[in-house]
Amino acid sequence: MLKKSLVTVSVILCVAAGSNVFATPLVNNNITEADVKAAQQAWGQALINISKAYSEGGQAQAEKVARQVLDAAYGYNLGAVLFKPTLANGKQTFRTDYAGALAYFVGGNNNYANDSGFALKGWQGYDFSNAGVYINGDLALTMGHVMLTDKAGKVTTVDKTWGFKKDEQGTLRIVLHHSSLPYNQ
Amino acid sequence: MLKKSLVTVSVILCVAAGSNVFATPLVNNNITEADVKAAQQAWGQALINISKAYSEGGQAQAEKVARQVLDAAYGYNLGAVLFKPTLANGKQTFRTDYAGALAYFVGGNNNYANDSGFALKGWQGYDFSNAGVYINGDLALTMGHVMLTDKAGKVTTVDKTWGFKKDEQGTLRIVLHHSSLPYNQ
Amino acid sequence: MLKKSLVTVSVILCVAAGSNVFATPLVNNNITEADVKAAQQAWGQALINISKAYSEGGQAQAEKVARQVLDAAYGYNLGAVLFKPTLANGKQTFRTDYAGALAYFVGGNNNYANDSGFALKGWQGYDFSNAGVYINGDLALTMGHVMLTDKAGKVTTVDKTWGFKKDEQGTLRIVLHHSSLPYNQ
Amino acid sequence: MLKKSLVTVSVILCVAAGSNVFATPLVNNNITEADVKAAQQAWGQALINISKAYSEGGQAQAEKVARQVLDAAYGYNLGAVLFKPTLANGKQTFRTDYAGALAYFVGGNNNYANDSGFALKGWQGYDFSNAGVYINGDLALTMGHVMLTDKAGKVTTVDKTWGFKKDEQGTLRIVLHHSSLPYNQ
Repeated sequence: MLKKSLVTVSVILCVAAGSNVFATPLVNNNITEADVKAAQQAWGQALINISKAYSEGGQAQAEKVARQVLDAAYGYNLGAVLFKPTLANGKQTFRTDYAGALAYFVGGNNNYANDSGFALKGWQGYDFSNAGVYINGDLALTMGHVMLTDKAGKVTTVDKTWGFKKDEQGTLRIVLHHSSLPYNQ
Repeated sequence: MLKKSLVTVSVILCVAAGSNVFATPLVNNNITEADVKAAQQAWGQALINISKAYSEGGQAQAEKVARQVLDAAYGYNLGAVLFKPTLANGKQTFRTDYAGALAYFVGGNNNYANDSGFALKGWQGYDFSNAGVYINGDLALTMGHVMLTDKAGKVTTVDKTWGFKKDEQGTLRIVLHHSSLPYNQ
Repeated sequence: MLKKSLVTVSVILCVAAGSNVFATPLVNNNITEADVKAAQQAWGQALINISKAYSEGGQAQAEKVARQVLDAAYGYNLGAVLFKPTLANGKQTFRTDYAGALAYFVGGNNNYANDSGFALKGWQGYDFSNAGVYINGDLALTMGHVMLTDKAGKVTTVDKTWGFKKDEQGTLRIVLHHSSLPYNQ
Repeated sequence: MLKKSLVTVSVILCVAAGSNVFATPLVNNNITEADVKAAQQAWGQALINISKAYSEGGQAQAEKVARQVLDAAYGYNLGAVLFKPTLANGKQTFRTDYAGALAYFVGGNNNYANDSGFALKGWQGYDFSNAGVYINGDLALTMGHVMLTDKAGKVTTVDKTWGFKKDEQGTLRIVLHHSSLPYNQ
């Protein structure tokens, strides 16, 4: 009984340490590690969702979901996004605008003839391993490996860097995304 | 004995919650609420320390401690500080440089003839009540009442605004300090 | 004619120097000194506008303009604002919410019986003298004297600290405002 | 004569717009586009300097210069750096510490047996083309192509992302560096 009581007190103290200890109005615009981890998970789930939409509803449905993802999780509404997708090259290596990003994920854009739609490849699983996290105000940077599993169970690993900006609604938005295949020695 | 052991466990949990959840290298330049509260407490204690040094060692000793406080807790090493002390006025209202701040706290500077040394007034107690806290990256702003108790037990309340900047060593430094007597209706 | 042409060229050069030197997409979330100066001027003009609305349309018109000012230039839409108005005291010293700020500027709120409406005092002129400016990302702090002139030509000087946050639309919003009468020695 | 005079005036106006318009103490911790461009140029020149040191003084001299570069231009003194070099892979893909970065640039470290020293490849020329620049407080992100020319005149193009942090001395330090070979379709 005594032990339980003491543990309860300690948990309450922990919660207090992580929230407002002043009992006063607080504005906190900073990104936390928990924010970053959740945003990475959301990105992986979004990719799988687009793949699923494609298998169920074809390109039109995939594009609809991809637009929702870009609207919700990328920062194109805030200006240019520094986006270097894994499989883009030449003059279309960098996709700083919305149209270029959408084309990369779901294809179907004659201006990006080489884009077959990265999110349409039947992705079913997702994992990541961060090599480092750098938090600076409302901006967080992560670098690490991302592992994607397709429907055949094959795992593709990419080297991934993200920059997340916390917007005024508290939503993390990708403002930087550099993805590349591992160097083949 | 039992109690001590349980408390130790709870502290460890708290520390874990506040550090790296990724098990990867982490850089986090942001200010936390806990940082802010500790810096406010340190300011109050520093004021009392200067008063104590004055009563024990006179003006020279008080100035020595005041210099330590300014070096450790203010941002004059980073550039100008926006400092409006409680009892300063006229052309010497704002003390953006080190000399002006030191004169305000311990007097003894002919260039600031009206300064009798705010920190020499025998302060023995300190409390604060934040009306609001605003955290933005490595900068935090607080506003509220500060209550200072002198050796006669008299309490002086001031309206206080602080801006704290977290430096590269993780130390919070006061870069903004506006203090004023309550409006006398 | 020649002169006009040359001046046009020089203006174009100035604009180029202040915008994108890379000829590439640029996102820049930072506050500039010019932003700060413009926001201070806008605050002064807004105060005069409320006074004018009051003299022309009474309390209702003044409140309408005051609401526009609070909506456009303060950060209550982003959360609590650290606001200590010049003539507020006691338990109503700090106005961290919209209602408290509106009451201070135009009165007419029974919950703030001491508020007679600071902006209703017939202000006709405005000037400021910054003692220091501190810029940190999308947040800027200023401290200095503000001089307000009423219809009788009488000048009131206050010690003023502002914190401006640049929002996602590029608008500077007051998130900190500490105003106090000069210390009367 | 007239033309020259007018142009001179315009240049003065431009300079004024970029410095302190308040004639008051100013602290500005923000990165500018000019800062970013200078830091990119410095990185290119540093790579060439290491190559030159190698050809003139061998590995020991190259390592000495590389250490100077890492000390002056990278952020390892501030904590982990998110660094994915162009030709690194497997478990040594990410070089978040100083030793890993040094090994990549100049080799000679048995713990990084695959590193032959990227900076020792006789680089003699350097150019870059930014696809986008993102500035957020004291942190700036760039993405684009970097073109390196070796002594045979062969140009190697890489996809490059940098994150620069402005430190307390005003020096930009690389805290993020993701470099990858173009995707080979």
